[in-house]
Amino acid sequence: MVNKHIGKQTVRLSSPPQIAAYAAVGGKMESEGPLAACFDYLSADSYFGAKSWESAESEMLKKCFDLALSKAGIEASDLNYVFSGDLLNQCVGSEYALRDSGVPAFGLFGACSTMAESLSLAAMTMDGGYAERVCAMTSSHFCSAERQFRMPLAYGSQRTPTAQWTATAAGALILDCGESGPFVTHITTGKIIDAGIKDAANMGAAMAPAALETILTHLSDTGREPNYYDLIVTGDLGCVGHDILLDLALQSGWDLTAVSGDCGMMIYDREKQDVHAGGSGCGCSASVLAGYLLPKFKTGELKRLLFCATGALMSPTTSMQGESILGICHAVAIEADRNVTGGC
Amino acid sequence: MVNKHIGKQTVRLSSPPQIAAYAAVGGKMESEGPLAACFDYLSADSYFGAKSWESAESEMLKKCFDLALSKAGIEASDLNYVFSGDLLNQCVGSEYALRDSGVPAFGLFGACSTMAESLSLAAMTMDGGYAERVCAMTSSHFCSAERQFRMPLAYGSQRTPTAQWTATAAGALILDCGESGPFVTHITTGKIIDAGIKDAANMGAAMAPAALETILTHLSDTGREPNYYDLIVTGDLGCVGHDILLDLALQSGWDLTAVSGDCGMMIYDREKQDVHAGGSGCGCSASVLAGYLLPKFKTGELKRLLFCATGALMSPTTSMQGESILGICHAVAIEADRNVTGGC
Repeated sequence: MVNKHIGKQTVRLSSPPQIAAYAAVGGKMESEGPLAACFDYLSADSYFGAKSWESAESEMLKKCFDLALSKAGIEASDLNYVFSGDLLNQCVGSEYALRDSGVPAFGLFGACSTMAESLSLAAMTMDGGYAERVCAMTSSHFCSAERQFRMPLAYGSQRTPTAQWTATAAGALILDCGESGPFVTHITTGKIIDAGIKDAANMGAAMAPAALETILTHLSDTGREPNYYDLIVTGDLGCVGHDILLDLALQSGWDLTAVSGDCGMMIYDREKQDVHAGGSGCGCSASVLAGYLLPKFKTGELKRLLFCATGALMSPTTSMQGESILGICHAVAIEADRNVTGGC
Repeated sequence: MVNKHIGKQTVRLSSPPQIAAYAAVGGKMESEGPLAACFDYLSADSYFGAKSWESAESEMLKKCFDLALSKAGIEASDLNYVFSGDLLNQCVGSEYALRDSGVPAFGLFGACSTMAESLSLAAMTMDGGYAERVCAMTSSHFCSAERQFRMPLAYGSQRTPTAQWTATAAGALILDCGESGPFVTHITTGKIIDAGIKDAANMGAAMAPAALETILTHLSDTGREPNYYDLIVTGDLGCVGHDILLDLALQSGWDLTAVSGDCGMMIYDREKQDVHAGGSGCGCSASVLAGYLLPKFKTGELKRLLFCATGALMSPTTSMQGESILGICHAVAIEADRNVTGGC
């Protein structure tokens, strides 16, 4: 048995799987943002043809799943596994999206870190010889999230400047054993970090320390410098959380300014769109990865990406009970070259 | 790369990990049931010293996690990963239980199938060379579940005869590379099955078709007959769902009567305890596995167990919207002999 663990929390895949295809779906707000052209499908109808916000999220994710399969030129029955989760209570967004798929399914909950969590586990099942083709995906929907986590939309509640806008978006990635890349090469799995933040309208502050911990651990475990990567992208700290990340990194002796970005700051135009600190929700980092970042490997603009999805672990109940909001961040290294001899 | 996939949905591990230690924790109702002596810890205080039902569930799971570590003779820092999930919105039971653990954490949601889901992924990360020691665990709490899924307890709502009693219980398993066993040898990952059931007080009926699908697929994929196993145990169909499973199996040409059991029918005495169709909740099958079934490998009473945890995928919101309740079942073969030459 080859031990693939390096350092404290990182594994180096011995047979890095290829990200063969990817799809991104968004809603109206996303269609008005700077990445509009990057989505495979944009719906002007926030209901995606369904009768409730929750069903809308499932329809949106199903659309994204179908598009990813189509772009990969495969059927659902060609998949060994699908790894999916979302923000809704009991992850119903994913479950009803997969109701008719017939694919063996692992349900995940990692809040907004879900895209990196699903990609981590999907890549490990490929590399470990358990699968030949898998899908990793996730979604979020502004309307289903608002009424579940905060207030019914019709109340018109005011939002604080630190609040983020839950993206109505989904992203789906298909992994296989192909040779073209990009490849998932390393996985750094995050710990739960309690920074003591209790303001549910300031998720960025709750997640930034977790992002720092995972990024620094990844660099330490792999022996890489930050500039090994073309981009270290968090998702989704927003501008408040991202500033905190850069400050905390400087205090730890690392200047990440030049190399770092945040999916929550990319998906919307904060000058023109009323999103306060930026985007959030599982679907934000998922759609930015699938729609904006992964295509840059095709054009050669990106060769080495560290994708660090961050999650705020809490529920409205725990917040009302005065609990602090826990943070987590999982990092996945995606590279044009797999740097090993054998494919999967 | 060795392809470990056999048949449609099953993997055969090439380096089966050992289940090195396990712990079960329960509450008052569990202390009055037939398996009381099997729990490592029973609390007469349903709050487990906490101030809310949700915190109580986290405290209970943390107690179980600590007990499993202690029985394995290791510290949390010796674990590469923990796989955990629960029934609470956003899986807060698990997250706050792991707040101070410092262990890289994968959050799961599989409803009452979570123990098999976490054990599946934990075993794959061991077998794949990603870890040397991992923990798979889950919990449920009657009081946190009742008020979240049904009614506040103080309402004293009546329950229907098909309703099940959510166990206040947790189970945690530690996997490592030891030679003593029992070992996780095969994993059959379930598909989502929509049987069209809409009665949220009849989860057994919603899950039984998923259990059948996974069990028959496992037998077909492995070429095994039901009596290869000493026990094929579902968790938790209750007596209503288990009867449906046996009926459906007979219709498919299989008589599972002699070899099958159900964790939801084991944990309580339905004659003396007012639990209607039996136990349920992630913690039911987890604690029955950790407290009652796994010790039987030590005594030689069990040599081959197929552990088939079943989950009802829905939320109160989707049920109120008229959606059917989706079922899923993941199966894990646990055997005294690992039937391969190499250990992990």
